[in-house]
Amino acid sequence: MTSDTTPAQLEQALATADAAAPAFAASEPAVRAGWIRAAADALDAAADELVPIAMRESSLPQARLTGEVARSTGQLRMFADALEEGSLLEVIIDTADAQAKPVPRPDLRRVLVPVGPVLVFAASNFPFAFSVCGGDTASALAAGCPVIVKAHPGHPELSARTAEVMIEALKAAGAPDGTFGLIAGFDVGVTALKDPRITAAGFTGSVPAGKALHEIAVTRPEPIPFYGELGSLNPVFVTQAAIDARGKDIATGYVGSFTLGVGQFCTKPGLLFLPAGHGLQDQLVEAVGGVAEAPMLNDRIKDGFSSGLDRLEKIDGVRVWSSGPATLLQTTVAELLARRDEILEECFGPVSIVVEYSSLDELRAAVEAFEGNLTATLHAEDADADLARQLLPLLTARAGRVLWNGWPTGVAVSWAQHHGGPFPSTVGSIHTSVGVTAARRFQRPVAYQDAPDAVLPDVLKDSNPAGISRRVNGTVTTGEVSR
Amino acid sequence: MTSDTTPAQLEQALATADAAAPAFAASEPAVRAGWIRAAADALDAAADELVPIAMRESSLPQARLTGEVARSTGQLRMFADALEEGSLLEVIIDTADAQAKPVPRPDLRRVLVPVGPVLVFAASNFPFAFSVCGGDTASALAAGCPVIVKAHPGHPELSARTAEVMIEALKAAGAPDGTFGLIAGFDVGVTALKDPRITAAGFTGSVPAGKALHEIAVTRPEPIPFYGELGSLNPVFVTQAAIDARGKDIATGYVGSFTLGVGQFCTKPGLLFLPAGHGLQDQLVEAVGGVAEAPMLNDRIKDGFSSGLDRLEKIDGVRVWSSGPATLLQTTVAELLARRDEILEECFGPVSIVVEYSSLDELRAAVEAFEGNLTATLHAEDADADLARQLLPLLTARAGRVLWNGWPTGVAVSWAQHHGGPFPSTVGSIHTSVGVTAARRFQRPVAYQDAPDAVLPDVLKDSNPAGISRRVNGTVTTGEVSR
Repeated sequence: MTSDTTPAQLEQALATADAAAPAFAASEPAVRAGWIRAAADALDAAADELVPIAMRESSLPQARLTGEVARSTGQLRMFADALEEGSLLEVIIDTADAQAKPVPRPDLRRVLVPVGPVLVFAASNFPFAFSVCGGDTASALAAGCPVIVKAHPGHPELSARTAEVMIEALKAAGAPDGTFGLIAGFDVGVTALKDPRITAAGFTGSVPAGKALHEIAVTRPEPIPFYGELGSLNPVFVTQAAIDARGKDIATGYVGSFTLGVGQFCTKPGLLFLPAGHGLQDQLVEAVGGVAEAPMLNDRIKDGFSSGLDRLEKIDGVRVWSSGPATLLQTTVAELLARRDEILEECFGPVSIVVEYSSLDELRAAVEAFEGNLTATLHAEDADADLARQLLPLLTARAGRVLWNGWPTGVAVSWAQHHGGPFPSTVGSIHTSVGVTAARRFQRPVAYQDAPDAVLPDVLKDSNPAGISRRVNGTVTTGEVSR
Repeated sequence: MTSDTTPAQLEQALATADAAAPAFAASEPAVRAGWIRAAADALDAAADELVPIAMRESSLPQARLTGEVARSTGQLRMFADALEEGSLLEVIIDTADAQAKPVPRPDLRRVLVPVGPVLVFAASNFPFAFSVCGGDTASALAAGCPVIVKAHPGHPELSARTAEVMIEALKAAGAPDGTFGLIAGFDVGVTALKDPRITAAGFTGSVPAGKALHEIAVTRPEPIPFYGELGSLNPVFVTQAAIDARGKDIATGYVGSFTLGVGQFCTKPGLLFLPAGHGLQDQLVEAVGGVAEAPMLNDRIKDGFSSGLDRLEKIDGVRVWSSGPATLLQTTVAELLARRDEILEECFGPVSIVVEYSSLDELRAAVEAFEGNLTATLHAEDADADLARQLLPLLTARAGRVLWNGWPTGVAVSWAQHHGGPFPSTVGSIHTSVGVTAARRFQRPVAYQDAPDAVLPDVLKDSNPAGISRRVNGTVTTGEVSR
C-alpha cells in the first residue's frame, strides 16, 4: 500500500468491518482467542520476511525489530489468554435478594461487550508494537471489535504486508471477513474517524495531531471515545544519596536510556535532575560521546529533531555539554522555572537535559513544574525513604508510571502495566494503551436483569461452563451460581 | 441557596476543593470509607428535616422521597464498603520475572488513584439519588476526589440543606476542608466546568444540555472526561406467548411503570411493542384511566411535557387511546418506521406509546430502529427461547441494561448494576453512573515499577496489611506477595 486508500476502498473497509461486528462480538471467548493466536503465529512465521522490510523503511536495526515482533505477538497472546481465562470480560453477578432494602433486588449479571468497529492510528516509532499489529489492535480484537488500522506513512510496505499476514491468518482460522482492515492516507483517516460506523479510536503520535483528531472524534454528531497517547518528557529525579551510592551507573544508565532507539521512544527521559555538585559531568559527556551515529526513522522526524534541538540550544540558561550523534544539555532548576514552557517542550530524538537543583525545595519545585507525563522516575536510596514518601505522591499526581531506580524506556507487557498519564501525555488518562486493561477502552458493560439461564451468554450462566473468574455477590470466584 | 453563587464564592469552592485533593487522595481507604459513612449517617439522621423540603420543592410524595434517602445513603455505604474491601482500587501486581521473554519483566504494581476535583451537575427528578448526595457524588468521594455539586434549580433549598449536612458530617469526621462543596447558577456551572482545577464532570439531564456541556468539557485547553446521562426511550418488546400467558399482568405492569413518579424517570418505558391482535386495549385504557392526577416536578418540566405530548398526538399515524393524568398513544411498526425520528423522540412525563407489530420481521425491524438506550426489555416465555436468542444480541447492541419479564423503572444499586448505554442515552457509554464500577469514572491507574515496600502505598505492599483482594500474577488473591 504505497498510495492513499480510495473512497471506494474505504467504504468497503468500513462496510465489511460493520458487517463483521455482530458475528465477531458473538464469538465465544475461547474461539476468538484462537483467532488472535492464529494471527500471532502467522506474524511470528512471517518475521523473517517482515523484519527486513521494517529495517528498510524505519532504519531501525534487526535485533530491535526482531524483538519487537516477539513483543507484539506475545502481546496478542496475552490478550487471548486473558480473554479465554475470562477476566477480560469482567463478569459481575449479583443474585436476586428479596430482602434487600429499601427495595428487593433483581438478579443482575454484567459483562463487558465490544463497542463496535475501532479505528487505530498507527505510530512510526514502533513499526510493530504500536503499529498495524500493536497494542491498540490486539486489545480491540480481544474485546471483540473489528479493527481498521490507518497505516503510518513511515512504513507503508510493512503496514500492507503485516495486514495481509493478519487478514489471511484470521480468515484461515475462521474469523468473519472484515475483522481486520488497513487504510492509508491522512484525509482517509479523518474521513474514517467521522464515519458513524466507527465507534472508538486509538492513536499514538504527536500532540498537535492527537489534539486535532481528538476534537474531531468528540465533536462528531455521535461523539466517540478517542484514546490518544501524545507526548511525554519523562523526568528523572536523583537524590544525593543515590549519586553517592551509584553515580557512575546512573550516568551511563541515563545516557543509554535517552539514546536508545535514537531517542525515538515516547518514554525517553527528557530531563535528569541532579543535585548541584554531582560531579558526573565528565562521566555523562564521555558516555554521550560514545553514542554511535544512527539514522532516524524518517526525514520528517529528522527535520523535527533538528529544529527542536536548535530551539533548545538557543534558550537562555541552557548550555550544551556535548553534541554529536546525541546531545546533552544542562541548566538549573532556577533557570528552568524561569523559562518553563520553553524548556519543558518535548524534543523527539537523542537529546536530554541535565537540570541541577541546589536544595530539596528546588527539587520539589521542579517536580511540581511538570504537567502530565507517561512516566516519572526517582533514583534514591533506603536512607531517602522520608524524602521518597514526600515526592512519590507528587510524582503519582503527574505520571501514569512511577519508577524506582530504573529507566523509563521499555514498557513491559503484563496485567499490571499502565501506559498512560495525565494530559497532555494522553487524552483519556483513565485508560492505558499497554497491559490487559487496555481492552476496556473498547468494551462497554451490559447488565442482564432477571434473564433465565437459557438465553444468557455462556459466561453469565449459573453453571459457569468455562470456569472463568466472576465476581458473584461481591466475591471473586470460579464457582457455580445458585439462584 | 436561592441565588447564584458569586464569582468569589465559586473561586472559594474551587480553591478549597483543589487544596483538599492531595490530602483526600492520600487518605487510607478505611479512613475515607469512615468519612463517607459519616455523611450517610448524618443524612439518615436529617431525613425527617430533608424530606419535607424535598416534598415542597419537587412535589414528589413522602414515601417515595423517604425511600430515596435510604437508597442514597445505602449507596454511599456500598461505595464505602467496596473501598474498604479494596476492590474499588483494582490493585494488580505482577512480580519481577527475570526469565520473561523477549525481555525481563520488572515488578509492577498498579492501583487506581483519584483524578482530582469532580464537578457534578445534579438532576431534578431524583432530589436525593441523582442530586447533591447521589451516585456521582458517592462514587467520586469513594474514588478520593473532592466534589463540587452544581445544584439543580428545581430544589434549591433542599440542595443547600443537604450540602450543609454533608459538609458538617465530613468535617466532624475529619475529612479535609473542601472535600465537598455546592454551587448554584447555570453560568456558574459552565465557568466551573471550564476551570483547570476541575478534572472530570458527571451530568444527568436533557440531551441538549448534556451535549452542550459535553462539548465544553472535551474542547477545553485541557480536555476532561464528561459523563452525561442524557435521555432514553426504554422500549419494551412483548411476544405473543407472553401475551397468552400473562397479558393482563403485562398491561397493568406497563402502565404502572410508565406512570411511576409521574413518568419522570430516565428509565420510563416510552414504547410497548405488542403483537397485533393482542386484545389488551381495554385493559390498558382502564389501567391508564385509573392513574391519579399528580403534580410534575416543576413548571419547566410540565411545560415541556405539555408541548411534547401535543407534538406526539399530532403525528400522522399516532392515535390517542386514553388521555387524562396519563396518556396512552398507539401506532404500528409500519407507521413508526415511516416517521421514525418524530415518534422516537423522548417525551419526559406520563405518556407512552403502544406499537403493534404484525410479524416477527416487523418486531426485529422495530428493535433495529432504535439508537442507544439505557434499557431494553423483552417479555417472553420459555417457548420463545429461540426468538429470544435472536433478539437479545440486537437489544444488547442498543442498551446498557437488558431486562427479562420486568420493567425498567427502578435501578438496583449493587456491584453488577450498569446504568448507561450507547449514545445518545449517554456520552461515555463504557461507564456507568450506578453500581460500584461507577467510581472508575473518577480514577486513573498508576503503576509503580520496582518500588521498594517501604515507599509503596499500604494497598500495594507485599504483606497486604489490609487483606484486600488483589490480582497477583494474573490471579485474584488476598494473600501476601513474595518478591
